Order: sequence, then C-alpha cells, then structure tokens
Amino acid sequence: MSDFTPTERTQLHRLPKRGLYDRAEVYRILDEGLVCHVGFVADGKPVVIPTGYGRKDDKLYVHGSTASRMFRALGAGADVCITVTLVDGLVMARSAFHHSMNYRSVVIFGKATVLEDPAAKREALHAFVEHVAPGRWQEIRQPTDKELQVTTVIEIPLEEVSAKVRTGPPIDDEADYALPVWAGVLPLEIPPQTPIPDVRMPKEIAVPEYLRNYSRKRR
Amino acid sequence: MSDFTPTERTQLHRLPKRGLYDRAEVYRILDEGLVCHVGFVADGKPVVIPTGYGRKDDKLYVHGSTASRMFRALGAGADVCITVTLVDGLVMARSAFHHSMNYRSVVIFGKATVLEDPAAKREALHAFVEHVAPGRWQEIRQPTDKELQVTTVIEIPLEEVSAKVRTGPPIDDEADYALPVWAGVLPLEIPPQTPIPDVRMPKEIAVPEYLRNYSRKRR
Repeated sequence: MSDFTPTERTQLHRLPKRGLYDRAEVYRILDEGLVCHVGFVADGKPVVIPTGYGRKDDKLYVHGSTASRMFRALGAGADVCITVTLVDGLVMARSAFHHSMNYRSVVIFGKATVLEDPAAKREALHAFVEHVAPGRWQEIRQPTDKELQVTTVIEIPLEEVSAKVRTGPPIDDEADYALPVWAGVLPLEIPPQTPIPDVRMPKEIAVPEYLRNYSRKRR
Repeated sequence: MSDFTPTERTQLHRLPKRGLYDRAEVYRILDEGLVCHVGFVADGKPVVIPTGYGRKDDKLYVHGSTASRMFRALGAGADVCITVTLVDGLVMARSAFHHSMNYRSVVIFGKATVLEDPAAKREALHAFVEHVAPGRWQEIRQPTDKELQVTTVIEIPLEEVSAKVRTGPPIDDEADYALPVWAGVLPLEIPPQTPIPDVRMPKEIAVPEYLRNYSRKRR
C-alpha cells in the first residue's frame, strides 16, 4: 500500500509535523468518521454540504438523491474537496493563544465521477452501509432497481490526499507553566450507547451484535 | 430576533420540512458545535478546511495563523461557505434505502472580513475561548500584542443561513415493517468526560467547574 505523494495542494506548509501521507493512517481516519463535508463550486462560489460516505479500497463514495442540488452540481466531473474531521479532545493551555484541539482530519481533492452501472452503485451502497454498521447489509432489504435509479452515487479516487493530526497535552510558553491555571485535555469520546428500538418493531428481535457496544474505533 | 430569509442558495428544495430559518435554533446548533468546515475557492477549485470558531451575536469568527494558506486565500473579502454539523444518531431502517442519520447542520454563506483592529480581534478571541469553555477566558493569560499580530481573525455575518435537522425513528416503506430486522436509532452522544490534567501542572489546582460534567448541550 503506497503512501500519498504530496501535491501543491496537499503539501502542508505550516506545522508540517502534523501532516501525514500515510495511506493506512488516512484509511483509519476515514473508516472511523461518519460524516464528510463535500465542497464544490457553484456559480463560482463555494458550497459545503455534510453527508455520509463509504470507502472501498482506494475509492470514496458519497450518495444522495438524484434530485439534490449537490448532485446536480457534481454531475459533470466537477472538482470536489472532501474533508473528514474527528475531534478527539479540547486542549486547555495556560494562555488563550495556545488553546487547541486534538483532532484527526483528512482532506481529499479530486474529480467526482457519477456511477451509472447499477451493479457498481449497489456495491457502493454496500460499502456505505457496512461503513456505518459492519454486518448489517446482509440483514436488511436490498435496494430495488427503482431505488437505485433515484440514488446518485459519486466516486472520488483516493489519490490527492493528506491528513493532519494533533495529539497530546497543551504546549505552553515556558514562562506560562508557572501560572496557577488548570491545564490539560478534555477528551471527547463517544462511548458505546444503548440503541433505541423502533416502536413498531416486535420486541423479540434482539439488538444485533454489531450494534451492541457500538464504537467507531476500528483499530 | 428575526428569522433568516431564504435566498436562492439557502432555500431548501428537497425535504423542505427539514429546513429551518429560525435564528434561535440556528444559534443553538452553532453554540453546541465545536468545529466548522470552511469552504472557499482557490484557483477556481474548492477547498474545505476544518477549524474552530466562535459566535458573538450575529457574527461568526474563525481564526488561525496569519501564515496559513486558508487565511491568505480569504484575505480579500472572499466568498466562503461555513458548515457546522452535529451527528445525533444513526438511523437503522429495515431497507438499505431508508438508512439515515439524525443530525443538525447549519450552512452559512457570506463574505469574509479580516479584522484589523486589535480590540476587535481580542473580542473575537474572547468569543472563541468562551465558545469552548464558558468561564475560562478570565482565568488564562490574555493574548499579547504580538500574538494578536500573528493571528488572523475573520468575521462572517450571520445573514444568509439555513439549518437542516433530522430527528426520530426510521421511516420505512409500509411493507418493510413486517421484516424481521432490528430497526431503531443508535444515539451518538458525547457524555461528560474526565479531564486529563497536564503532567506539568501542580496537583493542587482543581478542575474548574466549567470542565466538570462538561457538555456541549447549551439548552
């Protein structure tokens, strides 16, 4: 698995130690995230829309209604920038200036391709559901031909990609360490939650294993 | 407090019941979020960068190093689109097609203004810190003139804004309710976490009240 090659757009100029082109690490971040922010240009102006996504090998998939504005704008091989951000903690420094966040983010540049082949669309949707809940695809009703028709799926190659990561405690100016201020990190982690069953579901259907102790951690 | 007026860009065409122009609700979403995604156009192509933010009245503030590429691109009244997304839960339907997420998102369109006045910059940074940890600003070392100089702060008016919200259980096709599939919602809530004190901090400094039982909920 080859690492990403920095381009003019993905080369990190500031704090280069936070920049990563490691493909395995990038994929871990993408596989842990749930929502991406898709940026595109409409009438010369930027638009950023949040949406779910899925990954298969070195392709990212985003899907939505064929009628949506985003997918109409993205129809013709448009340039996109897709960003996934995980916030891991709040970094409380002794000075305002050194406050920060611990985070992992991935920025992807590329051209969107619209999938036309129903089998390819189905496979992308498979990746999409498995991204959210591995194991669920085989239990649910599969998409009908009509549902596939009204769903647009776009594919973005994972080629021009970079990650940024911050971890660890606050880094304060040396003189500030003497200040009587609480400093440290407030973690922001989503622990396993209790699923809420649909009221219309028969009570004898147990919570599937993949939703018990649900965690986004994929390591 | 007047609601937002839909424009061509913020008018929701699909699922209009999910669209909101209620200013108080938009502010609640912005005040609960931690990270925004800033979209801008560089060399005709979209770029989306995650960053922290603060709000004061009807202005949103984003800040960063004067040296950063984003702030160089945003220098001259550039068009931006800033999006804040909160993921509240995973919606597990009986069909692949009706899987969804419960979320609240805000999309802001506008032109960025760079703050030049040190007092205005300081006030924006105040909003920034208080956004993350209300009460912290008065305890920490304030920004020096030099720190203010190397910090770019941009202001975006909260004028052309819309929100989208999805809540509640899956909505399945009527025939699918008979399927023996677990369906419901998996909440994704960040509960209060235990702060991690910096190793270089004297142990007698107690965790401040605003970091105990820390929650993003602002209602």
